This record gives sequence, structure tokens and C-alpha cells, in this order.
Amino acid sequence: MNPKRCAACKYLRRRCPKDCIFAPYFPPNDPAKFACIHRIYGAGNVSKMLQQLPEQTRAEAVESLCFEAKCRVDDPVYGCVGIIHLLQTQIQNAQNELAKTQAEVAVAQTNLSQTQNSDF
Amino acid sequence: MNPKRCAACKYLRRRCPKDCIFAPYFPPNDPAKFACIHRIYGAGNVSKMLQQLPEQTRAEAVESLCFEAKCRVDDPVYGCVGIIHLLQTQIQNAQNELAKTQAEVAVAQTNLSQTQNSDF
Repeated sequence: MNPKRCAACKYLRRRCPKDCIFAPYFPPNDPAKFACIHRIYGAGNVSKMLQQLPEQTRAEAVESLCFEAKCRVDDPVYGCVGIIHLLQTQIQNAQNELAKTQAEVAVAQTNLSQTQNSDF
Repeated sequence: MNPKRCAACKYLRRRCPKDCIFAPYFPPNDPAKFACIHRIYGAGNVSKMLQQLPEQTRAEAVESLCFEAKCRVDDPVYGCVGIIHLLQTQIQNAQNELAKTQAEVAVAQTNLSQTQNSDF
């Protein structure tokens, strides 16, 4: 038993090879990170996805996969698509408020120019 | 061979059972939908996730899983987390523009009240 096995190999109860594809992204002190990703994608799928990526993009890919997996565990029906819907609603609200405020600017400017004109 | 096998069973080259968990959501005329989800999650994981959900929420869950899988295929590094970042940037931009416009309203209103006061 290698006490320095990464969290993935620990979880999968296997020896952690020197060139373990998971080791750089799943340190032994954060077991929940791998558990989540394993539950949603399966270790084999994650390993396949990482292998298909250039090494310098793998850390970011792991982060986004972990984020999506966590969202799916928290919300098994909508996953992080629920967040996308929420953000789209926020954008819609912000755009509505912007349009309202722009209308207020237009009214204020019209009032201003009328007041100024009435001075002459 | 059952010519009415669902897209999932067709893809998995297996008989489509009467109570197939995939059949209601993967019609035979849309094979790409299952291929995408299978590539990212694996059929077994999707089946497990659907089984854990009440039946009336499964259709929505399949749609969100398909969306996430498609995003991951299109963008293997960021998946649909890339969309979330994009939307967050849009919200930030909209909020900045809103703050700017609100400042404009404040200036216009101050100008207006000063002009009106100077009338008296």
C-alpha cells in the first residue's frame, strides 16, 4: 500500500501508478472531489476525457467536470443547467431594468431641455 | 430484432425491453442524442441517475444531461461551465452599464432641479 496514493486510486482501491492520470488533480487530502466526479461520470469516462486533452488543459477540465458533477449531485434533475437558467433570468431582469433606466434618462433629458428652452 | 427499438438500445445493440428506462426519452429517430450522452456519462450511469429520480422529472433530467453532454463534446475543457462564465461576464457588463446609466439619470435630475431652482 502506497500511503501517497491519490484520492482517485484510494477511492478505486488500487495502486497509484507513477504516471497516474488522476494524481495531479486529485490530491489525497480531498477525497470528496473524486467521489463526486466518479458518481456522475465514472472513473473510466473521466480518464478517457482527460487522455484526449493536451496536458496543459487537464487541470481546467477537471475543475469544470467537478463543478458539473457537484451541481448534478446537488440538483439531479437540472444539474448546472439550472444555474444557466438562473443566470439567464438574471440577465433578462438586468436588461429590463436597464431599459427602464434608459427611459428615465430620456425623460429627464427631455424635461431638462424643455425647462432650458422655456428660459429663453 | 425489434424495429422499434429506442435509440439507446439500438446504440447498445441490445433488445429494447418493454419497461426500457431510455425508451420514453430516446426515440429511434434521434440517434445522436443518445450517442452524445453515452460518450460523456456512459449508459449505465445515465440509467442509474434516471432510476433514482421520480418518473415525472426524468424527461427534464434527460434534457439537461443531453445539454451538458453536448456542451462537453463541443468544449471538452470547459463544457457548459464555459457558458456559465460567459453569462456571468454578460451580467457583469449589464450591471456596469446599468450603474453608468443610473449615474446619468442622477446627473440629469440634478441638472434639471438646478435649472428649475434658478427660475425662482
